[in-house]
Amino acid sequence: MSRIAYVNGVYAPLHAPLISVIDRGLQLGDSIYEVWAVRGGQLYDADAHMARLQRSLDALQIAQPMSERALWAVIRETMRRNRVTDGVVYVQVTRGAPPTRDHVFPTPGVRPTLLVTAKNLDRKALAARAERGIEVISQPEARWARRDIKTTNLLPNVLARQAAKVAGGFEAWFVDEDGFVTEGTSSTAWIVDEGGSLRTRPLSNDLLHGVTRATLLSLARQRDIVVAEKAFTIAEARAAREAFISSASNPAVAVTAIDGVTVGDGKPGPITRLLRAAYLGA
Amino acid sequence: MSRIAYVNGVYAPLHAPLISVIDRGLQLGDSIYEVWAVRGGQLYDADAHMARLQRSLDALQIAQPMSERALWAVIRETMRRNRVTDGVVYVQVTRGAPPTRDHVFPTPGVRPTLLVTAKNLDRKALAARAERGIEVISQPEARWARRDIKTTNLLPNVLARQAAKVAGGFEAWFVDEDGFVTEGTSSTAWIVDEGGSLRTRPLSNDLLHGVTRATLLSLARQRDIVVAEKAFTIAEARAAREAFISSASNPAVAVTAIDGVTVGDGKPGPITRLLRAAYLGA
Repeated sequence: MSRIAYVNGVYAPLHAPLISVIDRGLQLGDSIYEVWAVRGGQLYDADAHMARLQRSLDALQIAQPMSERALWAVIRETMRRNRVTDGVVYVQVTRGAPPTRDHVFPTPGVRPTLLVTAKNLDRKALAARAERGIEVISQPEARWARRDIKTTNLLPNVLARQAAKVAGGFEAWFVDEDGFVTEGTSSTAWIVDEGGSLRTRPLSNDLLHGVTRATLLSLARQRDIVVAEKAFTIAEARAAREAFISSASNPAVAVTAIDGVTVGDGKPGPITRLLRAAYLGA
Repeated sequence: MSRIAYVNGVYAPLHAPLISVIDRGLQLGDSIYEVWAVRGGQLYDADAHMARLQRSLDALQIAQPMSERALWAVIRETMRRNRVTDGVVYVQVTRGAPPTRDHVFPTPGVRPTLLVTAKNLDRKALAARAERGIEVISQPEARWARRDIKTTNLLPNVLARQAAKVAGGFEAWFVDEDGFVTEGTSSTAWIVDEGGSLRTRPLSNDLLHGVTRATLLSLARQRDIVVAEKAFTIAEARAAREAFISSASNPAVAVTAIDGVTVGDGKPGPITRLLRAAYLGA
């Protein structure tokens, strides 16, 4: 079945030409996005992702492309047309296609571009990845200053992720000038430190305000796990009992090695497993 | 006359849908661009811009979309179809439209997307701007670490430029953590300092390697102007004899005020005028 995308009122094949070359998302990176995980036909953390989408739009003063209610209808219809039961929904909003390229915002008459896609993911492959764990490499933090806004200016993320792949890993962790991990290219970074505390970097403009991160923190606290929102170094991560990543698609997936150095016993640890099971309601 | 764009072998109206939603330029900012100025039907610094386009592609390991010779033919044809004699040519190359969204590079079978546009600019308006000069505001440097690559991750540039417009200015100068100006959002920053030296920041990963910058430096040296490739602060710029910007479209345009403080006598200075005239062959 060929995939279907929604763009500004039209449902059409994913690879059909649907976007103008003059779209500010394409020419200026003037654009934000959001991703929902779907499991058993259900959108996870649905409202929190929608709230973050709104937050990203507000931060950049991009107009809402339609009401939240209408957007939910488009998301549901895109899922239906792509028969998505286990996978992801992707929503992107750009500042639209003005008459001509110019850095300054166009007149309010230029409507934002809304695009929605949805796809199934290989549930068995995701489960196998979680069973096995992943390897991570460290990369110097090279991104812009507002990583709390979920923009499509993702080139540094692309380059770091490609470097990870070339090195045989799955994800890259950005390390700031002071030696502390900020986050992964598309995931939050976590450890269970030598003292047994669950640690992840506190929220700031330096990192995305992870939706899955917030849910995992809440689940951990409910289970009386000691939680410290405190940044950690690569050395601390290597010496940790456990390390893991989280994202909508990968809630609590163990990191078994960092830059080739094994973490813990090189297998997914008990807190990682517990939080993943709690998140998935297993 | 409606404008015409070239995309991967097709000439079509600029606002027609020509790009897939899955294009990596749109979804991941995985894309570079280049701009040529056209005056009297002639491409300025033609080869130097082409060399920089190649440098950007190489830096990101994006394949060349076609031979240089073929690209020149497309550029010429796009100029012809848009009847461009005084304006700009815009070329963008993305890493293409893979089967699905993924940070890692797609297989080599995915061809880059090449798009070319061209438009006339209002020559009288540009000349009037140069006569009058422009106002600049300062903005904290917020961009990623590789500003030497001409990528479409331009959101920080968009936001700074919009801030300049809101403040009644035309351009914003980014100021790094040490207080030194890096460059403008789409132009190189220059001053003629209190001692009479022509100054602009030396090349590094912190700023774009300006093509017009290089030509102006060469023209200045030919005219025995004392040149110092040395960064300057906003305080130095405010106290300077002259300040100006340069880009393909705006070669040596005076900065008459910075954050509302007048520079020099608030009019385009002699070195600025001399370099602009020399560049334009006037």
